[in-house]
Amino acid sequence: MKKATCISFGFIWIVSFTFQLHAEDGYRLWLRYDRIENDDLRTYYQKQLESVWLLDTSATGKVIHDELVRGLEGLLGTTVHWENKLGDHQLVIGTRGQWPAFLAPSLLKELEALPREGFILRTMVVRDHPVILLVGASPAGTLYGVFHFLQMVQMHQSLEGVDHQEAPRLQIRMLDHWDNLDRTVERGYAGFSIWDWHRLPDYLDPRYLDYARANASIGINGTVLTNVNANHLILRSDYLDKVKALADLFRPYGIKVYLTARFSAPVELGHLPTADPLDPRVRQWWRDKAAEIYARIPDFGGFLVKANSEGQPGPQNYHRSHADGANVLADAVQPFGGIVIWRAFVYSDKSPEDRAKQAYQEFVPLDGQFRHNVLVQVKNGPIDFQPREPFHPMFGAMHKTPLMMEFQITQEYLGQGTHLVYLGSLWEEVLQADTYASGPGTTVARTLEQGPDPYLTGMAGVANIGTDRNWTGHLFGQANWYAFGRLSWNPEQSAASIAEDWIRLTFSNQPVVRKTVREMMMNSWETCVNYMTPLGLAHLMATGHHYGPGPWVNDLSRPEWNPVYYHRADAGGIGFDRTATGSNAIGQYAQTVQDSFGSPEKCPEQYLLWFHHVAWQTTMKSGFTLWESLCQHYDAGVAGVRHMITAWESIRSDIDPERYDQVRMMLTIQQREALWWRDASIAYWQSVNGLNLPPGTDPPRHNLDYYQSLSFPFAPGIKP
Amino acid sequence: MKKATCISFGFIWIVSFTFQLHAEDGYRLWLRYDRIENDDLRTYYQKQLESVWLLDTSATGKVIHDELVRGLEGLLGTTVHWENKLGDHQLVIGTRGQWPAFLAPSLLKELEALPREGFILRTMVVRDHPVILLVGASPAGTLYGVFHFLQMVQMHQSLEGVDHQEAPRLQIRMLDHWDNLDRTVERGYAGFSIWDWHRLPDYLDPRYLDYARANASIGINGTVLTNVNANHLILRSDYLDKVKALADLFRPYGIKVYLTARFSAPVELGHLPTADPLDPRVRQWWRDKAAEIYARIPDFGGFLVKANSEGQPGPQNYHRSHADGANVLADAVQPFGGIVIWRAFVYSDKSPEDRAKQAYQEFVPLDGQFRHNVLVQVKNGPIDFQPREPFHPMFGAMHKTPLMMEFQITQEYLGQGTHLVYLGSLWEEVLQADTYASGPGTTVARTLEQGPDPYLTGMAGVANIGTDRNWTGHLFGQANWYAFGRLSWNPEQSAASIAEDWIRLTFSNQPVVRKTVREMMMNSWETCVNYMTPLGLAHLMATGHHYGPGPWVNDLSRPEWNPVYYHRADAGGIGFDRTATGSNAIGQYAQTVQDSFGSPEKCPEQYLLWFHHVAWQTTMKSGFTLWESLCQHYDAGVAGVRHMITAWESIRSDIDPERYDQVRMMLTIQQREALWWRDASIAYWQSVNGLNLPPGTDPPRHNLDYYQSLSFPFAPGIKP
Repeated sequence: MKKATCISFGFIWIVSFTFQLHAEDGYRLWLRYDRIENDDLRTYYQKQLESVWLLDTSATGKVIHDELVRGLEGLLGTTVHWENKLGDHQLVIGTRGQWPAFLAPSLLKELEALPREGFILRTMVVRDHPVILLVGASPAGTLYGVFHFLQMVQMHQSLEGVDHQEAPRLQIRMLDHWDNLDRTVERGYAGFSIWDWHRLPDYLDPRYLDYARANASIGINGTVLTNVNANHLILRSDYLDKVKALADLFRPYGIKVYLTARFSAPVELGHLPTADPLDPRVRQWWRDKAAEIYARIPDFGGFLVKANSEGQPGPQNYHRSHADGANVLADAVQPFGGIVIWRAFVYSDKSPEDRAKQAYQEFVPLDGQFRHNVLVQVKNGPIDFQPREPFHPMFGAMHKTPLMMEFQITQEYLGQGTHLVYLGSLWEEVLQADTYASGPGTTVARTLEQGPDPYLTGMAGVANIGTDRNWTGHLFGQANWYAFGRLSWNPEQSAASIAEDWIRLTFSNQPVVRKTVREMMMNSWETCVNYMTPLGLAHLMATGHHYGPGPWVNDLSRPEWNPVYYHRADAGGIGFDRTATGSNAIGQYAQTVQDSFGSPEKCPEQYLLWFHHVAWQTTMKSGFTLWESLCQHYDAGVAGVRHMITAWESIRSDIDPERYDQVRMMLTIQQREALWWRDASIAYWQSVNGLNLPPGTDPPRHNLDYYQSLSFPFAPGIKP
Repeated sequence: MKKATCISFGFIWIVSFTFQLHAEDGYRLWLRYDRIENDDLRTYYQKQLESVWLLDTSATGKVIHDELVRGLEGLLGTTVHWENKLGDHQLVIGTRGQWPAFLAPSLLKELEALPREGFILRTMVVRDHPVILLVGASPAGTLYGVFHFLQMVQMHQSLEGVDHQEAPRLQIRMLDHWDNLDRTVERGYAGFSIWDWHRLPDYLDPRYLDYARANASIGINGTVLTNVNANHLILRSDYLDKVKALADLFRPYGIKVYLTARFSAPVELGHLPTADPLDPRVRQWWRDKAAEIYARIPDFGGFLVKANSEGQPGPQNYHRSHADGANVLADAVQPFGGIVIWRAFVYSDKSPEDRAKQAYQEFVPLDGQFRHNVLVQVKNGPIDFQPREPFHPMFGAMHKTPLMMEFQITQEYLGQGTHLVYLGSLWEEVLQADTYASGPGTTVARTLEQGPDPYLTGMAGVANIGTDRNWTGHLFGQANWYAFGRLSWNPEQSAASIAEDWIRLTFSNQPVVRKTVREMMMNSWETCVNYMTPLGLAHLMATGHHYGPGPWVNDLSRPEWNPVYYHRADAGGIGFDRTATGSNAIGQYAQTVQDSFGSPEKCPEQYLLWFHHVAWQTTMKSGFTLWESLCQHYDAGVAGVRHMITAWESIRSDIDPERYDQVRMMLTIQQREALWWRDASIAYWQSVNGLNLPPGTDPPRHNLDYYQSLSFPFAPGIKP
């Protein structure tokens, strides 16, 4: 009794101090490893994990060791007992190639067949010892297994009868940081770039390791360190030394480093008179540069390139094709095993063609012309990361060229740094969309997984990471980073189940928290679409910073930068005719898809004004007119934010005060901004359509002039 | 025995978990409040502090409450026991005006005489109860006393026979943040601006409160939020709402908010045709603007102004004087109790006069012409924050105008974000310098404390604070923030004793740590001067970013921006003749000072080349030539860094690994950069003087071309 009192006494002190001492500022992301409060549960795990036998002695083995110390000591409150031989209730961890045959010979066949980066986690009895075996196909696979295991404990899952085999369905799972060398982040709302270039390579910010841990925990295996609006300076030798320092840090976490290649670097850095990809001096320059990089970073991933897009230099400056451009770089990195990722985000400043058609028109004819180590990276939709877009017609359209998905995690068009919007829902809608490219069931996810080269499949996310303490600015931005990683590993995973996991890891396993926050998250995307761009509208944001509404903007230097280009609102109606009577962008889809979207009556309402110009007075399926429906959607969006606030407030006592406050303050901002979007949009549409507000619709709080007069010269993330 | 075991067992768990759970990333600055490890000492304090009776019920009282919880619970490991009546071994805390007469009537007279912001801390017996009384003249004074008290406990000082009375010797103790509205920080090396303007006023970053705590703990009572290279936008009403949010947060900590006033704001913001300070429309505009500010912030401090300096607009654009400019702003804020701080940092882009003379020449004739609520802010030396400068001749020269000191905490010229340089030594040298303005003993400190208006005395420090986790980039930058606060409170305090306190609070009370780190710090300034600009040299840095050496630079648009202007090195000699045979800048000092500096033989060597042009072959007191001596100083500087590394490594086991590593990595950078300064400088001087290296002097590692070719387009802190 006294001993129990003693232990409880100490325990209570420890629990209370644990609670007090760990600032819940969001820094620990979903890797919090706080003491499991339920005594029974904690004891259960302690009994299952009496010791750990770690066979992997690689650099990744050290990372695994450290993560287990953090994780198990945090969760269970006991020091990890490391063993060198088999024992009861032991976690045995190793990697293919270092796995002794005596340890579960039954496993060896499966192990042989395990895809790289995969792992097996299985409760077994080995030589009469009840153990949990964790073996990866590679050190990275083992590390992924360790994170998976720790997350099971974080989520209070049973260790009985565990039998997982996991392997990623996409090989390249990558973050694209739009980080500039001056540490500004284009479309970044979480402070500034975490890469402290000036003090690299000697000063290694501890944050770099936590970055690597966070990414490894969700299976991300690649990072592009620099903005697609590239700067040649990253290729200068002193900067390559800095890149090497990061690559060395990330390697044990299974993360490769990539860079964006400024197409004009041979001129700007190499002082050549040209950057023509077919010029032998240029070809040699890139070969020499690749050799210089690989001498420092033997597993350098390769280059990501934005060329002949929005002013970036490229092969077309020399009347060469995208394939010519990609191929000179591909040839340069090929001897070293590197790849080139060439972005399909192009739209001409000269062509009168519908912007939504241009990437397809430029790239599909090039199918088969790219080297074998080139992927083409395609945004989820044909315009540019709008709150909702139909899937990009290029998915399923190129059979000889590996395509990878480009999602945007940073919320450039979905509330930036101040709105709670769970993008898992958006990405799920895209990934599950049926392209019908090879008949029914050719989902976008399927086209990504089953490209022409099983080793060149992938997904990239434009990162939302910055120097803010909680990494992502808005705390719920973390959920989007997390969800991106999970979907890049398994594009078929459901957004709701990912949200559930994130909530359990980040906040708590309590049912009321899980349910409440999941509902908030699962409604948040449609809520945002509703107050910004409902019914298939798109690209209605303010100029430059893209912060707040600007549907009236009509004065930019390129017509397809103007919101009016997209909504085409006039006294009669609104929307962009992309059918055969209009731009026929719809023609780039498979026939079944065309049939589905092609008539205003059959077209799902969420895409209506994307594909059709519709009269304001048109009666919708609901019985209301388009105008009435549009106003209802805005109101639903504003109400949706109010519901999120009510929901969040209802679990106040179940969330730590710090993160509760963070989110509550952001919700206040979101409420104000949702109303702003609604009011400014309605005021503008009224100025165009001359219609009265539908009955029951609150008038905008200000007049249109007011909304048009607002200026935000220092809104963050501005494109330099 | 069992109970003791139980308690010890729990204690050990707690200590070990405390140690593990508190990341030592530098965020907690000198306010770490870690559990006192020595049982006896901890028990001693627990016995002295059985309860706390907090009488102050103001907003500051709440801040005091929270700080005591943090501090006492952290240090002692026991919950604070709050009382509502007198008791034994009690800490009684209150503020003049809320102090009941029965509590130590003997104190009341002293209390009455206590200067504002002062406090009394005294061990006493009151009505047979042994207590510690802490009473402040104002809530802020009480708060300062609380921090003082907590620091005593942090430093393991006895609570027996305590009898402190403290009051600041300068009234305005201020940080100047050179923060821009886009969150870049001019001459900032600690990341970016902590002011998240975009998300203010709704999102209040918890960092703001920790900023306030840190500043209150060292007596800082004012903060200028914006860059002296000002932007009118901060005066726009939506930005004033953001400023108000910060002012509301800081008020209970005794901190007032100030802004920089862009002199052309009446034009840029007010759309007036002029900003002429004597124009009635302009005068009215500033009055209206002041009213707008004070309606939101009743205790707004006032304006800091940089005008007609380095391109900033000012009264001289309208042929008015600095006094005219200051006075229009002073009149605007005067009804509300505000002040204007007008910077004397001017040097004409047209005058051929020695830059070192110009501020004095422009300002001293204006003595007496400023309104009573104006101070003139003067940099410590007459050029611009160089590693060493003689004191500014304006100190002691203006008898009717309050002057305040401007120090630079951010290390623009002293190693930026990568060098360990304790500036307390620099500031002490300046403050203790005897101006002889009213005979011997008229130290710079004395002139600051005894200005014409006892309420308008002060010291400002250009802040080194940014978004970096440890606030200041280099961990030892914290020591400079701390020292600045301490010196602003008491300009006579010794730099060594301040360093000692900082070490004890920040690292440990262990004698070996105190001694070792204090020696490192106390040698660091001279070390830096030695490898950068020894023997009175100045302004030899590279262009723009000021990162690294550039003594050869001779091509900038203003002659007095060129390093060659300052060193005047030629084949014969080096140095700037500021005596009567040269620019006669020396004539601006009192005669005694002139005599001291005036001849090369008598002039202290640390100022030699500041005041004299000296032949390379001149024999110095040491017997070595100037050239040999110069090279020796460089080598001493490089060796000095090596010694710091050895010293730091020697206490590796006494410092937490996190902060040990942080500093160790920075020292590696500093070593490299010290060598760079030395080598580039020597290579350049040789190219000018044609002399051989003195025997035993290592040649520069590269040739001069190499050093001249280096470029750092993204060095941080660049002036926009």
